[in-house]
Amino acid sequence: MTIEEIRPALEAIVGAAHVLSSPDGPRLVVRPGTTDEVSGCLAFANRHSIPVVTLGGLTGLVRGTELFGNVVGISTERLNGVLDFDPLRRQVTVGAGIKLEEVHRFAERHDLRYGVNFGARGSCSIGGNIATNAGGNSVLRFGMTRANIAGLEAVLADGRVLSDLGGLVKNNTGYDLKQLFIGSEGSLGIITKAVLKLSRPSVDTASVLLALDSLDDALAVMSVLELKCGVSLLAMEIMWNRYFKTAGALALRGSPLPLADHHPLYILAQVEGAGNGPSAEDLVLGALEGIDFIPDSALASSQAQQEAFWSIRDGSEYIEASHPTVLSFDVSMRPQDYSTYVAGVEDALSRRLPEAISYYFGHLADGNVHFMIAHDNSIDHADEIIEACVYETLSVYWPSSVSAEHGIGLEKAEHLWRSRSEEEIAVMNAVRKTFDPNGILNPHIQYRSRLD
Amino acid sequence: MTIEEIRPALEAIVGAAHVLSSPDGPRLVVRPGTTDEVSGCLAFANRHSIPVVTLGGLTGLVRGTELFGNVVGISTERLNGVLDFDPLRRQVTVGAGIKLEEVHRFAERHDLRYGVNFGARGSCSIGGNIATNAGGNSVLRFGMTRANIAGLEAVLADGRVLSDLGGLVKNNTGYDLKQLFIGSEGSLGIITKAVLKLSRPSVDTASVLLALDSLDDALAVMSVLELKCGVSLLAMEIMWNRYFKTAGALALRGSPLPLADHHPLYILAQVEGAGNGPSAEDLVLGALEGIDFIPDSALASSQAQQEAFWSIRDGSEYIEASHPTVLSFDVSMRPQDYSTYVAGVEDALSRRLPEAISYYFGHLADGNVHFMIAHDNSIDHADEIIEACVYETLSVYWPSSVSAEHGIGLEKAEHLWRSRSEEEIAVMNAVRKTFDPNGILNPHIQYRSRLD
Ligand SMILES: Cc1cc2nc3c(=O)[nH]c(=O)nc-3n(C[C@H](O)[C@H](O)[C@H](O)COP(=O)(O)OP(=O)(O)OC[C@H]3O[C@@H](n4cnc5c(N)ncnc54)[C@H](O)[C@@H]3O)c2cc1C
Ligand SMILES: Cc1cc2nc3c(=O)[nH]c(=O)nc-3n(C[C@H](O)[C@H](O)[C@H](O)COP(=O)(O)OP(=O)(O)OC[C@H]3O[C@@H](n4cnc5c(N)ncnc54)[C@H](O)[C@@H]3O)c2cc1C
Repeated sequence: MTIEEIRPALEAIVGAAHVLSSPDGPRLVVRPGTTDEVSGCLAFANRHSIPVVTLGGLTGLVRGTELFGNVVGISTERLNGVLDFDPLRRQVTVGAGIKLEEVHRFAERHDLRYGVNFGARGSCSIGGNIATNAGGNSVLRFGMTRANIAGLEAVLADGRVLSDLGGLVKNNTGYDLKQLFIGSEGSLGIITKAVLKLSRPSVDTASVLLALDSLDDALAVMSVLELKCGVSLLAMEIMWNRYFKTAGALALRGSPLPLADHHPLYILAQVEGAGNGPSAEDLVLGALEGIDFIPDSALASSQAQQEAFWSIRDGSEYIEASHPTVLSFDVSMRPQDYSTYVAGVEDALSRRLPEAISYYFGHLADGNVHFMIAHDNSIDHADEIIEACVYETLSVYWPSSVSAEHGIGLEKAEHLWRSRSEEEIAVMNAVRKTFDPNGILNPHIQYRSRLD
Repeated sequence: MTIEEIRPALEAIVGAAHVLSSPDGPRLVVRPGTTDEVSGCLAFANRHSIPVVTLGGLTGLVRGTELFGNVVGISTERLNGVLDFDPLRRQVTVGAGIKLEEVHRFAERHDLRYGVNFGARGSCSIGGNIATNAGGNSVLRFGMTRANIAGLEAVLADGRVLSDLGGLVKNNTGYDLKQLFIGSEGSLGIITKAVLKLSRPSVDTASVLLALDSLDDALAVMSVLELKCGVSLLAMEIMWNRYFKTAGALALRGSPLPLADHHPLYILAQVEGAGNGPSAEDLVLGALEGIDFIPDSALASSQAQQEAFWSIRDGSEYIEASHPTVLSFDVSMRPQDYSTYVAGVEDALSRRLPEAISYYFGHLADGNVHFMIAHDNSIDHADEIIEACVYETLSVYWPSSVSAEHGIGLEKAEHLWRSRSEEEIAVMNAVRKTFDPNGILNPHIQYRSRLD
């Protein structure tokens, strides 16, 4: 079908005002306002085998929302708002297009908290978070998005609506289908509504920045903090020297860093107080008491001090802005493998791209290393270098993942086989075919095995 | 194929010693000792369309393991033992046949804890727990079995092995297939191994028994305990008057009950101390301070006192033993609907089966009511009475589930439609067909819609 034929059919479903032409091309973007309209759009697309791409907040980092060819974009922007709230069960039902930040604001107004949080909060949508099973800084405490979802509604490729919005804690009546949609990157259906779990907020928090001499020492501190602080531990990040030094200098704009910048590793941990027990500060100091191998440390308990500490950890954007070329990675492995992996990447880079500078940081206990390879020119054969330095080096480790948080999208399709077996990929595709026999949903995202 | 033809083929795979005839019939039970042997058995069964039933610890409560017709039982009994342990990540890899209680013992030996726990622990297997997504007393704190699984290995109907045993906290590379197996009751494959999450154990615990005048009061107390104790709250059970009085008298064998037995409702809550913060006792007393509508309460902090309190809650077996006929139920709904549901069941019973005596208890915050309908004779037309008094009464409430913890099995197949939509049931069956095109896996368990 041509765009000229498709447009009036979509206009009849969502209204002419909500069918837009994408500025840079002949493609259409529809903005359905209800689940029924999503269903109408998909049923139409499916009947005519028109490929569609679901568009959330467009903050995804693996090119999952690229529009190309004759594809129709379906935006969830108008599927927003808070639809229901159960204070007793601490559950809120929202439209999938609602921004993450609006959920935080809603929770705060009710003296509650939503556990998923990260830098893109002002733009990303809950539907996008669910479709990518987003993580963030408090996975340690609240888990990935998956652990924060009590219910979902999704529209299947043929327009049927799967609804599981009851938010029951216990419902062992067959397969928990919502689990499949979480992390499916729009390939199984369009998520239209979700029930989110909220929890009581922090009474007080404290952050501690620790210098460490080695990964072994860092892992020892990690275990102590996990065992002594338990669920009071909100976040526990690791920064390698070059990241700490550079992001710190840029983020604090020349103010002195809280710790000397010559230590190999830094941990930044945030703890919350127990409310009716010890304060956050007492908790973290108590936990660290008696550890004699921390060469330097700094405690922040005021909001302003904590923000300064965290601006270092969140300073990757400054590093990005300070080099003409920056490639970013998001891989996962066992924490005990961090050092040899980082050394392996450094070693491979020193041979392939000696002028590159790389910066390593991550979510310590999650096994999640983020890093940036920066270059002061453009990088020739970047794909090949990435393959050799980042992913081949990673594949030495088991278990490991080429995508800890961000998904596969277009970006990582060719590396999927490194993290999932042929059998898993075959089953994923069989499941996908069951949900979307005509292959209309995000067809650009392909779960390919090495043999494909 | 006849049993005479099947037996030698299975013997060739698992060894003659591990192919048994079921005592009460001509059926075979095989006991594979490795994943490869499970794979061999299934590939053979699939080739010849021989139906199989997976047998774990046989403690399931919905007749999921019934052998009938020409079916071959595949027991996981020999797939046991601890296979790997990562103290840093607090993960243990086990064979699916390991008993739940052995996992607890292993965790204790390493000063850790596995969060899933319930009465059948000495007999039930981890594979069965996963296949039924079992709950138990600490779902409030640790979630259902689903929340305690970091990895799985399963053999598909055609013998292919899906393995995801890396235990990565973060791995957003496509669908999280293990989620599908959790709660699938053996209908998608045989679980052969699992990676379990362990956590730090309690330092000290205290239990409090509270009398309440109404459900509203009980829910108010629930909210206070949840908000003030947070994750220190290990369990929070509700007992209606008749259950408390009867189970209490039987469990304590005539010793006086900790509270007078005339109150409409009782809550039994267990809290753990913060380790480096307030003791469990201080925590629970602090949380309840200032609540002026609790007519009576008792605190247990010694192990022996706590055991006495919990023997009341766990006293359903005494009630079962004290009536010739006892029917047991496991339903779920919003906690705010408990009272009207219980009143509805009582009312329906008073009209249909006036001599019945029913006993209600449950997991307060989980929305999970268990109850028993007892009768001093046999019950005629039990199915019809159950339908009218238990499930039709339940269907008035949304959301609600005919199976909170136990699964569907043979027992609840005809009620599935009350909790899942036609679309959900259709998708479940489509997924099942994708995994098991010849329909050999637990074919007696059928996910039927009302129209089937
Ligand atoms: C500054 C910044 C920081 C970030 N930090 C983190 C972080 O800490 N942790 C982390 O995990 N990620 C992070 N991300 C990436 C993260 O994946 C996204 O921010 C977010 O989860 C995507 O939401 P979105 O609404 O923008 O989705 P989009 O980018 O619009 O879409 C992402 C994918 O999901 C699909 N999709 C979107 N909505 C739906 C729907 N309703 N139904 C079905 N499919 C849908 C799309 O087709 C696409 O494939 C960050 C991104 C930025 C820019
Ligand atoms: C005294 C008692 C108390 C109980 N308390 C609770 C409770 O508090 N909470 C709760 O949720 N349940 C409870 N149950 C029921 C509970 O479902 C089971 O105890 C347990 O989870 C089942 O494990 P099992 O190994 O005995 O499985 P089985 O009974 O052998 O099997 C159960 C189902 O799972 C399938 N299955 C078993 N193993 C596998 C495998 N490896 N791969 C694939 N499929 C498999 C079987 O085919 C069957 O359909 C209780 C039962 C008893 C007897």
